Amino acid sequence: MLERLDATNLHAVGRGCSLLAAGGGGDPDLALLMALHAVDGHGPVRVVRLADLAADDMVMPCGLIGAPTVATERIWSGEEGRVLRDQVEALYGARVAALMCFGIGGANGLLPVTWAARLGLPVVDADGMGRAFPELQQQSMHLAGIAASPVVVTDGRGNTLVLRAADDAWAERLARGVAGSLGGVCAGALYCMPGAAAQGGAIDGSLSRALELGEAMDRDDGMTGLGGLVEVLISEGTVVDVERSVDGGFVRGSATVRGTGRDATRELRLELQNEFLLAIEDGAVRAAVPDIICVLDSGSGQPLATDRLRYGDRVAVVAASAPAVWRTDAGLALGGPVAFGYEVDYAPLLSFDEVRHEPA
Amino acid sequence: MLERLDATNLHAVGRGCSLLAAGGGGDPDLALLMALHAVDGHGPVRVVRLADLAADDMVMPCGLIGAPTVATERIWSGEEGRVLRDQVEALYGARVAALMCFGIGGANGLLPVTWAARLGLPVVDADGMGRAFPELQQQSMHLAGIAASPVVVTDGRGNTLVLRAADDAWAERLARGVAGSLGGVCAGALYCMPGAAAQGGAIDGSLSRALELGEAMDRDDGMTGLGGLVEVLISEGTVVDVERSVDGGFVRGSATVRGTGRDATRELRLELQNEFLLAIEDGAVRAAVPDIICVLDSGSGQPLATDRLRYGDRVAVVAASAPAVWRTDAGLALGGPVAFGYEVDYAPLLSFDEVRHEPA
Repeated sequence: MLERLDATNLHAVGRGCSLLAAGGGGDPDLALLMALHAVDGHGPVRVVRLADLAADDMVMPCGLIGAPTVATERIWSGEEGRVLRDQVEALYGARVAALMCFGIGGANGLLPVTWAARLGLPVVDADGMGRAFPELQQQSMHLAGIAASPVVVTDGRGNTLVLRAADDAWAERLARGVAGSLGGVCAGALYCMPGAAAQGGAIDGSLSRALELGEAMDRDDGMTGLGGLVEVLISEGTVVDVERSVDGGFVRGSATVRGTGRDATRELRLELQNEFLLAIEDGAVRAAVPDIICVLDSGSGQPLATDRLRYGDRVAVVAASAPAVWRTDAGLALGGPVAFGYEVDYAPLLSFDEVRHEPA
Repeated sequence: MLERLDATNLHAVGRGCSLLAAGGGGDPDLALLMALHAVDGHGPVRVVRLADLAADDMVMPCGLIGAPTVATERIWSGEEGRVLRDQVEALYGARVAALMCFGIGGANGLLPVTWAARLGLPVVDADGMGRAFPELQQQSMHLAGIAASPVVVTDGRGNTLVLRAADDAWAERLARGVAGSLGGVCAGALYCMPGAAAQGGAIDGSLSRALELGEAMDRDDGMTGLGGLVEVLISEGTVVDVERSVDGGFVRGSATVRGTGRDATRELRLELQNEFLLAIEDGAVRAAVPDIICVLDSGSGQPLATDRLRYGDRVAVVAASAPAVWRTDAGLALGGPVAFGYEVDYAPLLSFDEVRHEPA
């Protein structure tokens, strides 16, 4: 059971967050460095389970909002978490008991760890997405009827805004606009809730799952399914085509992976919008969002982001099951193929009826 | 002395606000209709002088932020003022004693009257601009060291934001961005302050000046200087050229007015950026921002907005002095020609050493 985050396990958690990013979510390398620096300076971060929260423990989901590319190039003060925490406490008139990632995928899986270390607060072993999604209303809390507002955002440089939106779609629109005004990206806290609500609304065990996946990626030496945690869609292949354009702040396009070696006769087309959303072979959908499609570099085993995939890359393509909440009708409407404009049916990955990472 | 606003004087105040808009500030016709409707339903709005405010009376400057054209087409609920007032009271933990226009020019001179009527609150005979300016930091309160933040904005439809900006320029940038996300325009309250600060920071007598100008426009039957309140730059002319483009949310360009009748040998070029900023004759600056340059339709006597001026319009061009605060070094740096990128010296209108509208 994951009890604390420190230098012994943060690398593996970071790798797991990369995989759960499904090709989006922003580069976690900088976030990993920041988290390592923070636990080095402030000590390990305690991890609490959802089940161990008191009913009125205030949970603050947080992370970055905006363009991942800008986030990578931006110099953060590290004080963003404190600004968010102070504002949330003033708004709710209650102390924040724990931070939580609102999205475990990519940089946002680790940034709350940095903030928690600096604040001396624990993080909850949970998140609101179980992966990376492009929009803020694509959260399990939204599905549970918990409002995103009030949303607190800051650039950590003296600008702080509180957004009370008419609904979560407006919260997304307003926060996205503010991120633009603040230079492309900002830190945000939203869906703040008491422990009792988090127990019903958040996705349980997300940090544990990232750690389990990251450790399996370390052990795996031939894309053999990461110890059964993922389904291998293509074990050896080469990127033979990448079409990509930036449209309305999103990276959109497709990539084709042609099999080599034992997969020599196969070809997989990947549809992408920030994240990899569909894997299609011979006209049939092999995997679909909300399941987590990930392209791994054959040399390093590291996940490749949609905006970094290049012609000639030697890769494997794997997929991991989405948390159960995304495989409900409401979950599919919010985060399934139809939410991204694809008129295809979603079928769960055959080998994963249930996510296997429930905390022991 | 102006003691209340009602159906007997709102028309004249509205005309004065049009003139003080200097060609910008948004169409006041709709704002006038809303104000008339509000006083019809809720009774006259009491006008209080700055000098009569108690030291700790909270003053809430307010108005619309964003694109005037959109503001005209937008259907307002009328509840925007209540949302702003409630948020400001919650933020400051104090009751709002009076509303104030943050800018007297155009629609923003009248909209706070509508809100005040509905809230049963008085309006202060003052504003923060003495005219219309394009940016929120172009305020006398800014010059007095009063911060714009926290800025409250709302669309009156369930979205409300509180902006705490690093400085007033950031407040402008963030509020402008949020207005964009809210559809192009929103209602805002900013530079909220106690009476003692307003007495030092706001421009005194702005509503009285609008009324005086509006009444003079009614009486004037030949562009004879509106009873000495304005300087006539050209009394009879025709618009012979208009160059105008929309650039970064601003209307920019120039217009040329060729004299007719007794002005037949003259030609005046007007430089515009939302407002008319410079009047140039034979290479010499006849009038310059922050003084208020206004183009009046010869038929109706009504001010013409920069975005409505057309080839062939028969017009007079007049100018009114800016409030003294804008003619200081700091005022000119913030609201003079150099603030708009013009490398010309400002010389006050010869006939107006001081604004003549001080309340009796």
